[in-house]
Amino acid sequence: MSLASTEVLSDVDAAVRDVARRAQVASRALATASRGTKDAVLHALADALVAASDELVAANAEDLDRERAGGMSPGLLDRLALTPARVDGIAAALRDVAGLPDPVGEVVRGQTLPNGLRLRQVRVPMGVVGMIYEARPNVTVDAAGLALKSGNAVILRGGSAAARSNEVVVRVLRDALEAQGLPADLVQTVDPWGRAGGVALMHARGLVDVLIPRGGAGLIRTVVAESTVPVIETGTGNVHVYVDASADLDEALPIVMNSATQRVGACNSAETLLVHQDVAAQFLPRVLAALAGADVVLHGDAATIGAAPDGVAVAPATDHDWATEYLALELAVRVVASLDEAIEHIRTWSTGHTEAILTNDLRASERFVAEVDAAAVMVNASTRFTDGGELGLGAEIGISTQKLHARGPMGLTELTTTKWVVTGDGHVRP
Amino acid sequence: MSLASTEVLSDVDAAVRDVARRAQVASRALATASRGTKDAVLHALADALVAASDELVAANAEDLDRERAGGMSPGLLDRLALTPARVDGIAAALRDVAGLPDPVGEVVRGQTLPNGLRLRQVRVPMGVVGMIYEARPNVTVDAAGLALKSGNAVILRGGSAAARSNEVVVRVLRDALEAQGLPADLVQTVDPWGRAGGVALMHARGLVDVLIPRGGAGLIRTVVAESTVPVIETGTGNVHVYVDASADLDEALPIVMNSATQRVGACNSAETLLVHQDVAAQFLPRVLAALAGADVVLHGDAATIGAAPDGVAVAPATDHDWATEYLALELAVRVVASLDEAIEHIRTWSTGHTEAILTNDLRASERFVAEVDAAAVMVNASTRFTDGGELGLGAEIGISTQKLHARGPMGLTELTTTKWVVTGDGHVRP
Repeated sequence: MSLASTEVLSDVDAAVRDVARRAQVASRALATASRGTKDAVLHALADALVAASDELVAANAEDLDRERAGGMSPGLLDRLALTPARVDGIAAALRDVAGLPDPVGEVVRGQTLPNGLRLRQVRVPMGVVGMIYEARPNVTVDAAGLALKSGNAVILRGGSAAARSNEVVVRVLRDALEAQGLPADLVQTVDPWGRAGGVALMHARGLVDVLIPRGGAGLIRTVVAESTVPVIETGTGNVHVYVDASADLDEALPIVMNSATQRVGACNSAETLLVHQDVAAQFLPRVLAALAGADVVLHGDAATIGAAPDGVAVAPATDHDWATEYLALELAVRVVASLDEAIEHIRTWSTGHTEAILTNDLRASERFVAEVDAAAVMVNASTRFTDGGELGLGAEIGISTQKLHARGPMGLTELTTTKWVVTGDGHVRP
Repeated sequence: MSLASTEVLSDVDAAVRDVARRAQVASRALATASRGTKDAVLHALADALVAASDELVAANAEDLDRERAGGMSPGLLDRLALTPARVDGIAAALRDVAGLPDPVGEVVRGQTLPNGLRLRQVRVPMGVVGMIYEARPNVTVDAAGLALKSGNAVILRGGSAAARSNEVVVRVLRDALEAQGLPADLVQTVDPWGRAGGVALMHARGLVDVLIPRGGAGLIRTVVAESTVPVIETGTGNVHVYVDASADLDEALPIVMNSATQRVGACNSAETLLVHQDVAAQFLPRVLAALAGADVVLHGDAATIGAAPDGVAVAPATDHDWATEYLALELAVRVVASLDEAIEHIRTWSTGHTEAILTNDLRASERFVAEVDAAAVMVNASTRFTDGGELGLGAEIGISTQKLHARGPMGLTELTTTKWVVTGDGHVRP
């Protein structure tokens, strides 16, 4: 279903479709490569990045200087920064990916039918994976490594703030691929065409098999609205922790603290704490004091405000608080009358990322697991475990909050599709 | 990622979002229902349709009269027509779906991590499934049956040509659901809002979890371009059969005939025959004569035209022929110099639906299977086997030609997603 035949293409669209066509051709070289070949390539890419460390850091310094002058915040500058140690870390992550099992070739289902036809549904690479992301040069390498390991070509569109860094990273990776006898076009970028290149990538349906946006809500919303290429939506996590009437409160306290404060910029951090009214008087003073002690800005309903110990400030929570993914040391707290009220609150405000119940009641845990609709449901565990590494996937290209194809952390398997292989002996359909 | 907050909605958009919200609420009643409950409901729906047979046939007659007067072709009128026997058949299909295993609750993956966290990835319903299709009232029931069995609510948009038929079908299904104590809103239609209702359904992102268009290429292209809801693209099959140098030609002949002529309106029918030059002189006269004898209109390259026996007309094939899904008794034929040339031809023109090789050469079959990128690859079998029923899925809601989520025939499993359930004992992330 190419759009080329029915629409007049801009020069950028045409150029990016050409990039995608080259990626498609290049992907064929990798689709049938053995795991040994692919792992050797990943090690070679890691070596090449380490060898180019000085050059990478110098290019990155140009990005940092420009963005610092442009007023980028210290937090974002830190995410953008490359140091020799960080380059080593990025290379080490590539070697870790080389150590993971290869999903390609796995037989997902298979049987011999009564008529003698032999069926196999086999995992195969997607083909061409597009990644649109913000100013984190490590994502450039991560995405390339995961795509290559799963047999795909990748087309990258990084944030303009990392333009020089990404330019050098991509050149180093492409040179290393060629040195390994593989097509350089397995890794390409549309950054030279800037924002228009990203939009053209979203329109390259039929050439790009999947597009994965990674970044803030604005970026993801744009990609979802604009793309005709199938998108896997990642990211936004408005995450709840519900402390049930039967919860072990000594266990609940560290789980709440871990969920809410360990790494507030992560999408699996908690935004809202729901506490059953039967344990509110006992639990809220403790947890609010602990949260305030960790510099967490608190918002609460009237019952929560009433339960706050002296010296702990709790501002009245509004619908804005229930709806917001803070990505900051900030938490909304509400007292609920029942498990049903907790589930109803979550249904109203959840983004379907991660929801947790802390309970010792088997039926309550089972109802919560069954009735809460999210990529991950935690029982007596921190919400921070929704992560490819923590869930044993070995690596992660993002966390899907949609239901199609992949839900939750996406690893190598999620970068593959399947193919039915049907073998007969002259079988025709009656 | 609701659009409601950022865009001014039309009345139709608002009304359809309301339909979708009711579907979402209704879906919760079914998401946790047991297989026994769901199967009993499907039998009750089948009973209700049979009981309403006269009313359905009468409503259908109104559609038929109007469309006949409007000049609808006899083929399309036949697809639109309901008879008491067809209503019985539609009801029987519902009972067959009741007999299939329930995908919900299947544990896809699971393990206990070294830190003691217990992981399960469990199959759960999508939630709300949207179906946009053309004038076939049986699809209304099929889609509802498959969606309900897999625990989903369904929102339907049928072709306007079947408006009266679908109106009665939906009413009968909704009444039967209520009689079973389930929400009628598990089955809804946006047909009252006509084309605008269909477009609004495509925009109901965040409320509708997946949209499946079923119909001609035009319908599918529109849905893909317009929808912000994730779409599973179905359908177009530009299907090739390659007769290798080593093929058993006595076996190849019936496979080609079956692929090319058994049901030409189906997407798994063959459009192009590729013949290796080493067997062209032997095979082409036989197969061309057989095809011509079956009234197949033939197009061919120069070598094919040269090999045609007396009295068999073969028109020169153009790029248009290589590109076209005929959906008619029509076939393009080309002689290729090698397996590579066959694969290259398929790569150029394939829509990724079904491709077949007829061969006795193990390495040739393995290369074809590995290098041809399609939902289904047949070895020594008719292309007509790409079908949910034939591949043992029991039922089919469409055949996906995209790589995301579902590829090839889609059954009940493809109408589900997964949920990670993570159980700990106070686990926090270090």
